Amino acid sequence: MISMRTDLAIEAFETAVEEQLIQEPSIKKGIQITEDKIDQFTVSKVIIDKDAEELLGKKEGHYWTLEVPQLRTQDETLQQSISFAFEKVIRQFLPLSQIPSEAHILIVGLGNWQVTPDSLGPLVCENVFITNHLFLHEPHAVENGYRKVSAIAPGVMGLTGMETSDIIHGIVEKIKPEAVIVIDALAARAVERIHATIQISSTGIQPGAGVGNKRKEISYETLGIPVVSIGIPTVVDAVTITQDTLNYYLKTLGQKRRQKGNPSNSLSVGALPGTKKLTDKDEPTADEKKLYLGMMGELEEEEKRQLLEEVLAPLGHNLIVTPKDTDLFMEQAANVIAMAINSALHESLSNGQGSTFTH
Amino acid sequence: MISMRTDLAIEAFETAVEEQLIQEPSIKKGIQITEDKIDQFTVSKVIIDKDAEELLGKKEGHYWTLEVPQLRTQDETLQQSISFAFEKVIRQFLPLSQIPSEAHILIVGLGNWQVTPDSLGPLVCENVFITNHLFLHEPHAVENGYRKVSAIAPGVMGLTGMETSDIIHGIVEKIKPEAVIVIDALAARAVERIHATIQISSTGIQPGAGVGNKRKEISYETLGIPVVSIGIPTVVDAVTITQDTLNYYLKTLGQKRRQKGNPSNSLSVGALPGTKKLTDKDEPTADEKKLYLGMMGELEEEEKRQLLEEVLAPLGHNLIVTPKDTDLFMEQAANVIAMAINSALHESLSNGQGSTFTH
Amino acid sequence: MISMRTDLAIEAFETAVEEQLIQEPSIKKGIQITEDKIDQFTVSKVIIDKDAEELLGKKEGHYWTLEVPQLRTQDETLQQSISFAFEKVIRQFLPLSQIPSEAHILIVGLGNWQVTPDSLGPLVCENVFITNHLFLHEPHAVENGYRKVSAIAPGVMGLTGMETSDIIHGIVEKIKPEAVIVIDALAARAVERIHATIQISSTGIQPGAGVGNKRKEISYETLGIPVVSIGIPTVVDAVTITQDTLNYYLKTLGQKRRQKGNPSNSLSVGALPGTKKLTDKDEPTADEKKLYLGMMGELEEEEKRQLLEEVLAPLGHNLIVTPKDTDLFMEQAANVIAMAINSALHESLSNGQGSTFTH
Amino acid sequence: MISMRTDLAIEAFETAVEEQLIQEPSIKKGIQITEDKIDQFTVSKVIIDKDAEELLGKKEGHYWTLEVPQLRTQDETLQQSISFAFEKVIRQFLPLSQIPSEAHILIVGLGNWQVTPDSLGPLVCENVFITNHLFLHEPHAVENGYRKVSAIAPGVMGLTGMETSDIIHGIVEKIKPEAVIVIDALAARAVERIHATIQISSTGIQPGAGVGNKRKEISYETLGIPVVSIGIPTVVDAVTITQDTLNYYLKTLGQKRRQKGNPSNSLSVGALPGTKKLTDKDEPTADEKKLYLGMMGELEEEEKRQLLEEVLAPLGHNLIVTPKDTDLFMEQAANVIAMAINSALHESLSNGQGSTFTH
Repeated sequence: MISMRTDLAIEAFETAVEEQLIQEPSIKKGIQITEDKIDQFTVSKVIIDKDAEELLGKKEGHYWTLEVPQLRTQDETLQQSISFAFEKVIRQFLPLSQIPSEAHILIVGLGNWQVTPDSLGPLVCENVFITNHLFLHEPHAVENGYRKVSAIAPGVMGLTGMETSDIIHGIVEKIKPEAVIVIDALAARAVERIHATIQISSTGIQPGAGVGNKRKEISYETLGIPVVSIGIPTVVDAVTITQDTLNYYLKTLGQKRRQKGNPSNSLSVGALPGTKKLTDKDEPTADEKKLYLGMMGELEEEEKRQLLEEVLAPLGHNLIVTPKDTDLFMEQAANVIAMAINSALHESLSNGQGSTFTH
Repeated sequence: MISMRTDLAIEAFETAVEEQLIQEPSIKKGIQITEDKIDQFTVSKVIIDKDAEELLGKKEGHYWTLEVPQLRTQDETLQQSISFAFEKVIRQFLPLSQIPSEAHILIVGLGNWQVTPDSLGPLVCENVFITNHLFLHEPHAVENGYRKVSAIAPGVMGLTGMETSDIIHGIVEKIKPEAVIVIDALAARAVERIHATIQISSTGIQPGAGVGNKRKEISYETLGIPVVSIGIPTVVDAVTITQDTLNYYLKTLGQKRRQKGNPSNSLSVGALPGTKKLTDKDEPTADEKKLYLGMMGELEEEEKRQLLEEVLAPLGHNLIVTPKDTDLFMEQAANVIAMAINSALHESLSNGQGSTFTH
Repeated sequence: MISMRTDLAIEAFETAVEEQLIQEPSIKKGIQITEDKIDQFTVSKVIIDKDAEELLGKKEGHYWTLEVPQLRTQDETLQQSISFAFEKVIRQFLPLSQIPSEAHILIVGLGNWQVTPDSLGPLVCENVFITNHLFLHEPHAVENGYRKVSAIAPGVMGLTGMETSDIIHGIVEKIKPEAVIVIDALAARAVERIHATIQISSTGIQPGAGVGNKRKEISYETLGIPVVSIGIPTVVDAVTITQDTLNYYLKTLGQKRRQKGNPSNSLSVGALPGTKKLTDKDEPTADEKKLYLGMMGELEEEEKRQLLEEVLAPLGHNLIVTPKDTDLFMEQAANVIAMAINSALHESLSNGQGSTFTH
Repeated sequence: MISMRTDLAIEAFETAVEEQLIQEPSIKKGIQITEDKIDQFTVSKVIIDKDAEELLGKKEGHYWTLEVPQLRTQDETLQQSISFAFEKVIRQFLPLSQIPSEAHILIVGLGNWQVTPDSLGPLVCENVFITNHLFLHEPHAVENGYRKVSAIAPGVMGLTGMETSDIIHGIVEKIKPEAVIVIDALAARAVERIHATIQISSTGIQPGAGVGNKRKEISYETLGIPVVSIGIPTVVDAVTITQDTLNYYLKTLGQKRRQKGNPSNSLSVGALPGTKKLTDKDEPTADEKKLYLGMMGELEEEEKRQLLEEVLAPLGHNLIVTPKDTDLFMEQAANVIAMAINSALHESLSNGQGSTFTH
């Protein structure tokens, strides 16, 4: 199994490649990756089969990733173009044409509104356009082109004392929506994906997955209706930052060396700037790894990770961190997702009109 | 039926008295009122029977009211003494000794966290001590003297698109608590009860009651378990303010007249200050009412209310108002209730120790 | 002097008319009123001279009022049209063409961010487009069509321990802006003006005016630079609500009576609905006042107000109230003002482009 | 000069030791370090002279550091004991007995309330007990044992458009306090100091120091009155995390090697747990560094830092990060500081009574 925690399927796949775990044909069959463009943005589409579930630590299903590094900018025009692209992603991903227009869709915002990087779900719930009660109580006042949408942000177990999945199961059994969209903040492996990637998947999610508690899924299997999950990575751990930095260091040195044509055996500051975009060809050899990073360089990725965890343990058990500016990013990210959901679900708000209802 | 809207049973009773609606013996039998002292505070205990349900617009059951005008002060010592008194009220009201110590109690915070005077329920939920998940996942870590407590603030229908009662019913059916405590902000009839009274009742409540929508109850009848509701009035309407002011004016004049011994037929400013506490004896006669307030004075209370509603309608449909400082009051009120609940439910936090867990 | 507190010059004028205080020619000369239209909205322009200062309790100067009852709706298109109209008001009111384009304008947001109806100033400050630091540190990065704008929300004296005017004076003396725009929440006399009127004036303001403390002005006289103040009424007092309601009642009855042609001497519920818009002609006669409201009807407005204050005093010293939904109104009102300021100050954002920078 | 950014003088000193920069006698004279105990907590006292200013990148003056790793716990009793200890630190550090009891002390909360890890200053300002206005307006109501205290949180330059130091200078010149206490969130070098250390210094501070902008100091030199600054580190950068982790790794391996007595030349996972507290003796030799970390191990600390910065530059310019739970830590940290300030400044609140006024 891959050595590091990530909520992104594409990262799980990349890690498996790096750790050379997907060479066997049986596993190759279990994973399909294609890349696509929507407007100016790249979408990676990962399909994971039963065969690859265990290796990647990801449930079988479809996982699409929209790469949007521009999400971090404060440029409102860019935000709208991201939202518009994600509206298209949702329309492609959800078989909306097959969901009857009178179907009721429940949006579930997971996470803790008291912890900024964990508040994506509640923030999205505050900005989606809620209509279901109008259908219930003022049906004549609802114009064509709107679906029934409701939303709930139940809070985390530490706030409620209840399993979040129990709360959602109870509500779904009573309210009987035809589909569920779950929103949650994610953990990434790579620092550059924080607030820069939107993942949508068909598998539902497990609240608190990876923390060690086995909690019940919110998924088609447990609810009996389609469950789509949408998330943005907002945190990484300190081990990840260190491991990533060391790997960049190794690759960068390897690239420099090949560029120069002559292997350098000592480092001097200032040699690195101007490095070209790193590619798989820049992967350092075993010799280079040892030369550049000593015994640390000889470790497999999994061993390296475990060693770094051991080193950091006395310092606070592998700190989970978030960018300093996460407050600003969260607000923007929640708006982008809410606008895209509004536009994708309601025909009358399609093509980017969904912003009217966000704050 | 009484003419004005109030969520307080004691006010419904007072109004019925004023409007001379409870003279018939059959109705007198339907209402019992007693007054008690807890520490320095007055508790009014109202029991409403089936016979008086319709007249008072209040479901049959027990309604206790703790009078705490000091809740509006910023004095922390006073806040604690109110909380301590309300802890005793809860202990008396809830047959806690009959609820098994291992029973699970769900606290439901109704209301809208985006609308300050409607945010009492959500604020209390953030300050009660949640333990149920510890019993589920770390039972060995829970010391004696604690009950299983969970909490949820689902939000209002305008935010969720779902009937609040459906959400609560769904959760209760799944989680199966043994009792429910519902917290909600109330509407009062008398301005001086705003942020100055705590009501606890055995009847559960109807979200949005009185607004005209028939919504499902959250009560023993619908959930099959005891439902206690706790509330503090935070709003009045403009008609109420006017009607109350006119009634005070009539009573004050009547009192002045009797004090002087000679009926005065004209008003001069400055005659009123120094008025003694008003009592039922100060009720003005019909002649006085006409003298002091003309045709308005001849109206029955219910007619007066309807007339004022007609007058105010073009101005914005009977404005619901709250004191300017409601933000400060809400925070204090929520803390006082949360502290009292913590202390009443958990034996280890009794006698005022419940403050440790509020913010 | 007029009998009631209002921060709106137009209301002070209306009150003086009602109280028949501006019949003397000397005073008539001191006040000029004209009415204008900007887009679909009415603007009342009041000019107060030295002669009328004392009577109206308003400093000499220009006061314009934009009537925008639509500000209370949740309709985003309407909000933008209000903002666009207010942008035009600012452009007309401020001699912007005479203020050099390189002048530095300081926006001061008065009020208390912890008290919702008092938070207009701080909320506007969070949504205006701040540029002055860019001119200081990255002048090359600033495009044409932008002015130097800075902002500060100092908080109220209870939070800072300092006179707000001292804080502003200190900052102005150090920073030396060329003009100041002060934003503050106002108190109105008429309930229907709450969150429905925007006033702009040339007189600057006195923090806490009317509360009884003499504090120093923020004005041209004290700062030596133009000071424009912008405000929206967010609160009324309970006496005002009662007095207004009684006056509406008297006028409405007077109108009905004349409509019917036959004076009715008793009231019946249901007689009022369908009342036409009230005009000055509906002013009740002295006889009608006595008939409809007894001794209360015989009082002058000022006496009536004092009497009501005496009546309400024991109930909490003339409660200041705000609509229950003030949280929602405040956010919208602050956005509308901030958008208008952004568009009015920066040529590049004119004609409604100023929304780009609000949240 | 030392190679890495830290706002803590004790870390600057430690770094200089690590980088072997303070061996010269002239520099040794410039730095004095002593360690003390207050209650259960360690206080490090650093005195920096002119001679060492440049090397450490810290202005000459006194810097005390209270080590309080317990600040991260949710235990209220522990928080109070930290606050009580810091009250004693303030009393020792500030010559309060020499500041006349009628002196006016201004508390300045620097930082951005919209960015959680930067909101320490504004949060403290909301929780300190403000009295200056009472001395101004109700002097008879102020009991003995209280000082004149005021507070302002001006916001950051991105929000105000003005230099923060200009705002403060303007206010100080107008208000004329006798001393200033500045509160600000800090950047640390070591992850384990985040939310675990309180620094108090005599040097004042530079807003935005280290970001590259030269802004004016808030200090005795510029204001002419004592300026004490108090801060808690809330952020680190990704380079720091990586560099620290590598250094821990080297030290840990060095220690293990010596413990075993036999140099191991290969790494196996699981070798590290049980490591003893690291000391200076665990410093690895040059040979060990090369063995364990290859060419990276041969670099000086400063070179290593520069290299890591070059590696991370393409990934987002050296991400500044904060713990995921920073929202919870900030609230506690602000309360602890505010309680200590309240108790230290007001004789009547001494010995931990200052909590009465925090929220």
